[in-house]
Amino acid sequence: MNKYTISDYLLDVLHFGKVYQVLGVPGDYNLSFLDHITSRTDMEWCGNLNELNAAYAADGYARQQGLAAFVTTYGVGELSAINGLTGSQTEGVPLLEIVGLPTTANQLQRKRVHHSLGNGNFKHFQAVHQELGITTGIITATNAVTVVNQLLRKIITTKQPAYLELPCDLTELPVNPAFKQLIPALFKPSIDLDLPLIPQTLIKQALKQAKQPLVIVGQEIEQFQLGPVVQTWLEKQKLPFVDLIDSKGVVAETSSQFRGTYHGQLSKQRIQEQVQQADVLFLIGTIFSDVNTAGFSQQIQPEKMIMINTQSVSVYGEKLIDQPIGGFSAWIHELCDAQRVDKNENSLTPTHHPAIEPVPVANQPLTQTFYQKALAQFLQPHDTVVIEQGTSLFTIEDVRLPSGVKVISQPLWASIGYALPAALGSQLANPNRRHLLSIGDGSLLLTIQELAFAIEQHLTPIIFLLDNHGYTIERVIHGERASYNDVPQLNYQHLLPALGAKPKTYRFMTVKTETELMSTLTNLKEATPKLTIVQICLAKTDAPQALRKFVDLIYGD
Amino acid sequence: MNKYTISDYLLDVLHFGKVYQVLGVPGDYNLSFLDHITSRTDMEWCGNLNELNAAYAADGYARQQGLAAFVTTYGVGELSAINGLTGSQTEGVPLLEIVGLPTTANQLQRKRVHHSLGNGNFKHFQAVHQELGITTGIITATNAVTVVNQLLRKIITTKQPAYLELPCDLTELPVNPAFKQLIPALFKPSIDLDLPLIPQTLIKQALKQAKQPLVIVGQEIEQFQLGPVVQTWLEKQKLPFVDLIDSKGVVAETSSQFRGTYHGQLSKQRIQEQVQQADVLFLIGTIFSDVNTAGFSQQIQPEKMIMINTQSVSVYGEKLIDQPIGGFSAWIHELCDAQRVDKNENSLTPTHHPAIEPVPVANQPLTQTFYQKALAQFLQPHDTVVIEQGTSLFTIEDVRLPSGVKVISQPLWASIGYALPAALGSQLANPNRRHLLSIGDGSLLLTIQELAFAIEQHLTPIIFLLDNHGYTIERVIHGERASYNDVPQLNYQHLLPALGAKPKTYRFMTVKTETELMSTLTNLKEATPKLTIVQICLAKTDAPQALRKFVDLIYGD
Repeated sequence: MNKYTISDYLLDVLHFGKVYQVLGVPGDYNLSFLDHITSRTDMEWCGNLNELNAAYAADGYARQQGLAAFVTTYGVGELSAINGLTGSQTEGVPLLEIVGLPTTANQLQRKRVHHSLGNGNFKHFQAVHQELGITTGIITATNAVTVVNQLLRKIITTKQPAYLELPCDLTELPVNPAFKQLIPALFKPSIDLDLPLIPQTLIKQALKQAKQPLVIVGQEIEQFQLGPVVQTWLEKQKLPFVDLIDSKGVVAETSSQFRGTYHGQLSKQRIQEQVQQADVLFLIGTIFSDVNTAGFSQQIQPEKMIMINTQSVSVYGEKLIDQPIGGFSAWIHELCDAQRVDKNENSLTPTHHPAIEPVPVANQPLTQTFYQKALAQFLQPHDTVVIEQGTSLFTIEDVRLPSGVKVISQPLWASIGYALPAALGSQLANPNRRHLLSIGDGSLLLTIQELAFAIEQHLTPIIFLLDNHGYTIERVIHGERASYNDVPQLNYQHLLPALGAKPKTYRFMTVKTETELMSTLTNLKEATPKLTIVQICLAKTDAPQALRKFVDLIYGD
Repeated sequence: MNKYTISDYLLDVLHFGKVYQVLGVPGDYNLSFLDHITSRTDMEWCGNLNELNAAYAADGYARQQGLAAFVTTYGVGELSAINGLTGSQTEGVPLLEIVGLPTTANQLQRKRVHHSLGNGNFKHFQAVHQELGITTGIITATNAVTVVNQLLRKIITTKQPAYLELPCDLTELPVNPAFKQLIPALFKPSIDLDLPLIPQTLIKQALKQAKQPLVIVGQEIEQFQLGPVVQTWLEKQKLPFVDLIDSKGVVAETSSQFRGTYHGQLSKQRIQEQVQQADVLFLIGTIFSDVNTAGFSQQIQPEKMIMINTQSVSVYGEKLIDQPIGGFSAWIHELCDAQRVDKNENSLTPTHHPAIEPVPVANQPLTQTFYQKALAQFLQPHDTVVIEQGTSLFTIEDVRLPSGVKVISQPLWASIGYALPAALGSQLANPNRRHLLSIGDGSLLLTIQELAFAIEQHLTPIIFLLDNHGYTIERVIHGERASYNDVPQLNYQHLLPALGAKPKTYRFMTVKTETELMSTLTNLKEATPKLTIVQICLAKTDAPQALRKFVDLIYGD
C-alpha cells in the first residue's frame, strides 16, 4: 500500500472535489479498493445499510457538497443501486459510482463467477447504465488515469452522475505520483465564454425592451451553483422572479424580487396573473415536467419566452442552440451581464407575501394543512429541508423560505424512499447545518434501515413522520380506501432503540393535536441537536388541498 | 369492473399457475390493475415494504409454488426490483413482474412525466431488461392476449422469469371471456418427446456399459420439478449419486443411493474419490460456477462425462445439442427410462454417512461449527431451509438432509439480503410448512423492513440470526479486522415489537453458549409456530472452516 496507485489517484481527484466521505456497501470485488479509503486520514468510509440507500445518500451528499462518490460490488450491488443512480441522472446530480469487478483474467476467460449473469459476458451491466443515459467507464491497465479524468471532468461539466468499473485486480495498479500535482489544473472549474453571438444579441435586446419581464428560475441554477450570480442580477436589474416547486429557494425567496412559487394552474391566482401579464418570460435552468407544471397546466406562450437550460437555448419559441449542457453556466453568466433600460419595479403587480404570522392553534386533531403552516413557522435561515415525494411535497409549496434554506426533493424521478437516505447523506456532508425531513410512513418504510446509519454517524436530522398508515398520495390518486394503499403500522417509539440508538442520544415525540405539535416545535427550537423523530398522527384520509387539486390536473384527462 | 378485461385474463392465467397471492408495491401507474386483484375472492394482494424485497419474495414464492407474480410501478419501482429479477433470471426461477406504465397517450406524445427519464423515450427500461437476458413484453390495445400467452408460456417452458409492461390506460381493456376457457389447454404442461436420436442412443449405451457410473444431480432438476422422477430412476437402477451445494436435497439425501454433497476440492476425501473413480459421470441439470465448484476445483474429465442441462446436451465432452432449454424436461424423462444391465450397487465404494448423532454440548461460547451441527440435528422432514449467501451457505454443506427438505439459496447470483424476503415469500405460498432461515446480521440489515411483512401476514419462520457485527464472509476474503466489514449493532430484542409485532405473537431468544442453543432448540421443537428470532451470538472472527478453505480455493490464484 506504499506505492501510488490508481485507487489513490481516483481518491485524490474526489478529495479535490471536496468528497471527504465515501459511501457504499462492501463486497468481495471492492474490498481492496476500500483499503485505500480507510488508510487515508483525510477521508472516511461511511458504509450504508444497502446499495439503494447508498445511492440515495450519495445524491443527498452531492446536492449539499457539489460532488459525491459511492462504492458497490459487481452485478448484485450496482443493480440494487441503479434506481438511485438513474434518479441522480434524471434530476441532474453530480456523483460517481465506483463498481468493483471480477478480475480481468476471469473476465477474459469468460468464467462463470458469482454476481455475473453466468454467460461469460461481463459487459451487460455497463450496457444497462448506458441505456439509461449514464456516462460509463472501465479502468484497464493502459487507460486508468485517462478514464478517471474523463469521467470526473464529465461529471463536473455536466453536473450529471457517472459510473466507473474497477476490476479488483487493478486497484493496486501503479500510477506516476506526478499526476497528483496536475489535479488542481485539470479540475479547476472553467467558464468558456465563447458563445454564439446571434442568440446573445437577441436575448440582451429582449431584456432591454421588456416592459413587464418575469424570470422563472429553475432547478438547474442550483445544479450549477449559479444561485448567487442570478440573485445579484435579479436584484440589481430589479427583475421580478418566480421559482417552481423543484427550485424553491434556489434564489432566496426572501429577495424583494420574489413573486412566489409558480405551479401552473395550481398556483395562487395572483401568481398566475403575473406569468400571464409578463411581456417577456426568461426561463433559466427550467425544465418542465408533469409534476412541476401540475399536469402541464402552465400558461406560457412560446413567443414570449426566452429559455436557457442544459437542453437548449430558445428565443421566442425558436430553438437556436441544441444541447449546450457544458456551456449552460457560461450562458447564464452572460445573461447576468445584461442590463435593463427601464428598471421599473412596478411594471408587474407588486406582491404582498403573507408574513409568517403566528398560526392560530386549537386543541384539535392535526391535519396536513395545519402541519404545513407550523412547519413554515419552524423554518430557520440556512436549514436544509428534505421533502419526500408524497404529500410532503405539497405542504412546502406555499411556504416562503427563509434565506439560505436549501430544499432537496426529487419531483421528476419521484422515487419514494429517497428522502431519508438523501437527508442523511446531505447532513453527513454538512453536519452543523440543521436538517429537517418531512416524510410519510409509507415512504419511510422503503429505506428505514438507514436510520441505523444516522445513529452510527451521529447525525441529527429532525424527522417529521407523517403517520397515516399508508400511501396518502396514492389514496388521493386512486383507491382512497383500498387496502393496497395501507402499510403495516409500526411502533415508532421503539424504532430508534431497536436500531441501536443509545438512551439520551435521540428524541421521539408523538403529536396528535395542534397544541401538541406547536409545543413540541417550540421545545425543539431551543434544544440541542439530536436525532429526532416527531410522529405526526394524521387521519388516513387527510391530505393537503393542493394535492387533491394537483391530482385533478394531472390525472384529470 | 364488471366486464372481462385483460387484467382479469392475466390474473386468471396466473391463478391457473397456482399463484394465489400477488406481491409488490403500489404506485400511481399500477393502482387500477391492483383493483382487479383485490376484487377477487380467490387471490390476495400482499404488499411488500419495497420493490427489491418484493422481487426476492416472489422468487421464494416461485421456488415453493412453481410460479409467482409481483407488481411494480414504472421506472423507480422496476429499477428498484431489477437486482432481484436478474437473480431469478440467473438462478432460473419462473415468475412474472408486471410493471404499470404511463398512459399510451403520454408515451406517444413523448411527455416529460414523472418516473420517466424525461427524454420522451419510454423504451429504455424494457431495453435494460432485455440486455439482462430477461424476456419482455408490452400490452397494447391490439396484442394483449397474445402477449400474455407468449410470456406465460415462455416462463412455464423455460422456468425463467419474464417482464410485462402494462400501460395504466389499458388495465380495463375488454377481452372476450371465451379466452378464459382456453387457459387449461394453453398452459397444460406438455412434454415434447421428439428428441434427436443419436445422443439418446449414445447416452443409453453409456448407461448400459458403465461399470462405476455416478450421477451428479444439479439444481435444474429442482427448477423443472423433476426430483421425484430422477429419484425413482436412481433407486430402481441402483445408481449412486451426489448433489452440489446448490442442489442439496433436490433428490432426497435420505435415499440409499446418496453419496454426499460434492464441492470440488472442498469435499470430503471419500466423495472426491467417488467422483474420480467413476467411469461414466452423468451430470443432469448441473451448471458449474465458481461457487458450487469451490473455485472451479472440480476434477471431472470431459471424456467421462455425459451432461444434460438447459444449455446443452454433451456426450463425452462433445456438445451434441445446443440450448435445449424447452426440451430439457423431455431429455431427463427420456434418460430416466434408460436401464442399466449390471445393477451392481457396490461398483463404487459404499458410503457410510455419519448418522445424526447427539452433539456433545459444553457450556462454552458458540461457534459456527457447533451451530452447524445443532442445525443439522434440528432439521425435520419437509422443512424449508433458506440459506443466506454468507457463512450460512457453508454451514449446511455437510448436513445430510432429512427427506423432503427443501433448500433455498442463491449460490451464483449471491445477492446478500435475498434470504429474508425469499423465506417469507416461500412461506406465504405454503404457510403450514416449517421454514427455517439462517442469516447473518450483515445480510439481514439490507432488507430488514420485510419483517413487518412477516408480522402483517402472520408468517412463522424460525430465523437463526448469526450475530457477529458484520460481513463475516467478506472478513474471511479480505480485511478481517477492517472497519468496513462491520455493521451497526442493533438491539435485536426490540426489533419485532418496533416493527409492529404484538406481544405473544412472536418469540425472541438470545443464545451465547452451546448449552443455551441446545436447550432453545429443544424448546422450539415442541413449540407452536410463531415468528421467531434466535440471536446466535458469535465472535467477530469466528467462521466455518469450510468457508476459509473455500476462500483459499476461489481467491487463491
